[in-house]
Amino acid sequence: MQAYLAEFIGTMILIIFGDGVVAGVLLKNSKAENSGWIVITFGWAMGVAIAVYCVGAISGAHINPAVTIGLAAFADFPWADVPGYIIAQFLGAFVGGVIVWLAYLPHWRPTEDPGLKLGVFCTAPAYRATGPNIITEIIGTAVLLFGVLGIGANAGAVPGDLSAVIATGLNPLLVGLLVLGIGLSLGGPTGYAINPARDLGPRIAHAVLPIAGKGSSDWEYSWIPVVAPIIGGILGAGLFVLLGFGG
Amino acid sequence: MQAYLAEFIGTMILIIFGDGVVAGVLLKNSKAENSGWIVITFGWAMGVAIAVYCVGAISGAHINPAVTIGLAAFADFPWADVPGYIIAQFLGAFVGGVIVWLAYLPHWRPTEDPGLKLGVFCTAPAYRATGPNIITEIIGTAVLLFGVLGIGANAGAVPGDLSAVIATGLNPLLVGLLVLGIGLSLGGPTGYAINPARDLGPRIAHAVLPIAGKGSSDWEYSWIPVVAPIIGGILGAGLFVLLGFGG
Amino acid sequence: MQAYLAEFIGTMILIIFGDGVVAGVLLKNSKAENSGWIVITFGWAMGVAIAVYCVGAISGAHINPAVTIGLAAFADFPWADVPGYIIAQFLGAFVGGVIVWLAYLPHWRPTEDPGLKLGVFCTAPAYRATGPNIITEIIGTAVLLFGVLGIGANAGAVPGDLSAVIATGLNPLLVGLLVLGIGLSLGGPTGYAINPARDLGPRIAHAVLPIAGKGSSDWEYSWIPVVAPIIGGILGAGLFVLLGFGG
Amino acid sequence: MQAYLAEFIGTMILIIFGDGVVAGVLLKNSKAENSGWIVITFGWAMGVAIAVYCVGAISGAHINPAVTIGLAAFADFPWADVPGYIIAQFLGAFVGGVIVWLAYLPHWRPTEDPGLKLGVFCTAPAYRATGPNIITEIIGTAVLLFGVLGIGANAGAVPGDLSAVIATGLNPLLVGLLVLGIGLSLGGPTGYAINPARDLGPRIAHAVLPIAGKGSSDWEYSWIPVVAPIIGGILGAGLFVLLGFGG
Repeated sequence: MQAYLAEFIGTMILIIFGDGVVAGVLLKNSKAENSGWIVITFGWAMGVAIAVYCVGAISGAHINPAVTIGLAAFADFPWADVPGYIIAQFLGAFVGGVIVWLAYLPHWRPTEDPGLKLGVFCTAPAYRATGPNIITEIIGTAVLLFGVLGIGANAGAVPGDLSAVIATGLNPLLVGLLVLGIGLSLGGPTGYAINPARDLGPRIAHAVLPIAGKGSSDWEYSWIPVVAPIIGGILGAGLFVLLGFGG
Repeated sequence: MQAYLAEFIGTMILIIFGDGVVAGVLLKNSKAENSGWIVITFGWAMGVAIAVYCVGAISGAHINPAVTIGLAAFADFPWADVPGYIIAQFLGAFVGGVIVWLAYLPHWRPTEDPGLKLGVFCTAPAYRATGPNIITEIIGTAVLLFGVLGIGANAGAVPGDLSAVIATGLNPLLVGLLVLGIGLSLGGPTGYAINPARDLGPRIAHAVLPIAGKGSSDWEYSWIPVVAPIIGGILGAGLFVLLGFGG
Repeated sequence: MQAYLAEFIGTMILIIFGDGVVAGVLLKNSKAENSGWIVITFGWAMGVAIAVYCVGAISGAHINPAVTIGLAAFADFPWADVPGYIIAQFLGAFVGGVIVWLAYLPHWRPTEDPGLKLGVFCTAPAYRATGPNIITEIIGTAVLLFGVLGIGANAGAVPGDLSAVIATGLNPLLVGLLVLGIGLSLGGPTGYAINPARDLGPRIAHAVLPIAGKGSSDWEYSWIPVVAPIIGGILGAGLFVLLGFGG
Repeated sequence: MQAYLAEFIGTMILIIFGDGVVAGVLLKNSKAENSGWIVITFGWAMGVAIAVYCVGAISGAHINPAVTIGLAAFADFPWADVPGYIIAQFLGAFVGGVIVWLAYLPHWRPTEDPGLKLGVFCTAPAYRATGPNIITEIIGTAVLLFGVLGIGANAGAVPGDLSAVIATGLNPLLVGLLVLGIGLSLGGPTGYAINPARDLGPRIAHAVLPIAGKGSSDWEYSWIPVVAPIIGGILGAGLFVLLGFGG
């Protein structure tokens, strides 16, 4: 149970920082308004790092169903723990979205564009094109899993004991910087969901919260940042293991 | 006494960097003028990290009454040392504000807006709304305390020996990056005081210094960044300990 | 063979991040559009760091023919392995370019300027001037090799066991930050190729891929970012060893 | 002699990165043109870190006469080595300036403002005011020395063996980040020379090089970034030692 709690808290922390920085950049009269892509990507990166420092020693800090499934498929994370981890991640992401709504309470009404408000909670592609959007999210998440396993292996982990290694010392910061790089380099087309919980959990929060002047929660796009990252995570973890990079 | 001196110096360093970077971005004809939120948040983050490196081994580098009170309430920092720590922090923050005034001496008069000059010293909310402003500062400071305790626990500390751990090796940098993330993600609505000394100490400096063309010190808002961070610090430390994340 | 595979994968990772971040900043309607030099240089830096973490323990993560040749000339990397390393690096860079094309698929047609599209894949100088362009690339690559050897020696490596040292702990991040610095400081005139594979591999990808509305692959400039970095790499490694800085 | 060579090379590296990044931001049609204060401060910071990694194990990487004099006055750096160190630092800074001129060779003529060209090589204050300019440089350099000694003490050094400690592991990066913070926070009024060699060495390079369309080397200001940093360095080192922070 403590591991599930850790995944809940870790994903909540991720979203407080991640959705928080998007709120800061997009919402009207925020002190961070229009401060750009470097701010958004560093905010998400610090969220990842802090979440892994806070809960990594307890649960391994997957904080992402694509990581959980990728590790179950190709490392020795037990399939029996997968449902509990994923439920905790979605719940944590939902609550994180609620907290960001609270933290930016006076900024929702003055922000006119409902698309900006939705953008705080979940991703939308620059161009709507199902195939290409899926490809982009697959590539981003494959790089994430390959990178996480690479950082772990570099620090001495075989994939089977990844959780113990990835959560200590410099490694949580490196995982944050990996996500910094993914955001900077691969976030342009779809906003780098690369995490089903990160996208769907706060999207549900957007749907149920009484956000002033909100619009659609864009359900027609919502399955892509759920399905594609899972495919990408399996692909990235599979490539890493099958290429023999885990030692 | 050396611990009190360390808190004085550490908080002074924090404010030299923190108020300094705001001066650099806001004051007329500064070489950093209008360089944006990424500059402000990195400046504060480096101030935190350097302060913790410089004085952490002596006092634990709380440099923030919300940290001191949070650790006294939920870790084993002795209540008897709390008043001395807090007094030292306020004095250090005051002197830090004076030093920033000196460092930017020729820039005060040409800066026309008195609000910008006050903004160098202390925070003001984007929208004045007592409840929401308090909520934002509570959330930010709760994340700060939760994160500091998480970084410490990750490095092997139980909350009781946090000070010895948080001040060594990579950890002071991580605390700085935690504050980077809080600033990027939660600083938009109120400017992330998250520290009563950081806000009130330099506000008093603003009130007493002969700053060219200064305006009001905005005393009506001044209690919020004092009270809310203390609540947030207790909340964050309490959650961390009660959830059993300290091992 | 595993070392060649590692160089292939490592260089591919470098280009996914590196060309990816340029695509993000240059291509029309990317979420990172026009986000500037700090984004580009951090994207490349994270690409270097992640690549070295992922493959450094296997091949030393040269991911750059100028590094391979410099180390063969002045450290004890065996000349017999040089051709295989370089071929793997070029192939990895080519495939990396293809992946970036895929990741940004909907963005090529709306981007009108063919020069921006080419700029995603390879470098072009701000001013075309053969001698000065060569000098700039020589200086940048000499600093790269000098810095890599310096970071390695600082961590206890003599040049002969550089690969084992440079790939562990903090060092891959430091190599990434070295490239961050080179990009920030020396990238202005020619876009810091400092790596023949990084430039020519994706340039070939540009030539063969069906990129919507693409223009010339600028072959007349293409030899400079191949030849000059090799000279610079030999110069930097030679200076480091001849000055006795390797201990 | 190897220590003097190391100070020469280290200061040269500092200036290649530091003056290089200013050239990138100020000179016409550089790819980094107008990329702002975050780029300039990160470029200098990486220059400091790389220089300390490269030469710190040999000479301690003072790369700054204010550091050398401060450590001679208040730690146990021998006065007999001071002149050799300082001469090496000035020569290295001069050669660094020459290399930056070469790296940006095609950009000097198209840059119209001679003040921008001078700004690549040395500092100028936003407002010319002798007393305040001196105060700003004193504050910045005092923070530098206090911070360097703090980072060293935190890592276990007493001031007397600072050089051995400051040059290893994470510490050179921390010194770079200290200079990042000083630049962000205290660089606004005078451009943070905080180093007599950094300012005067390249200023002499500006005076003697055949820079296209150059103007005055601004000798009337040149003594301030030489004298004030030395005072600040002594002040910062003295405060650190006299307050008993060195253990």
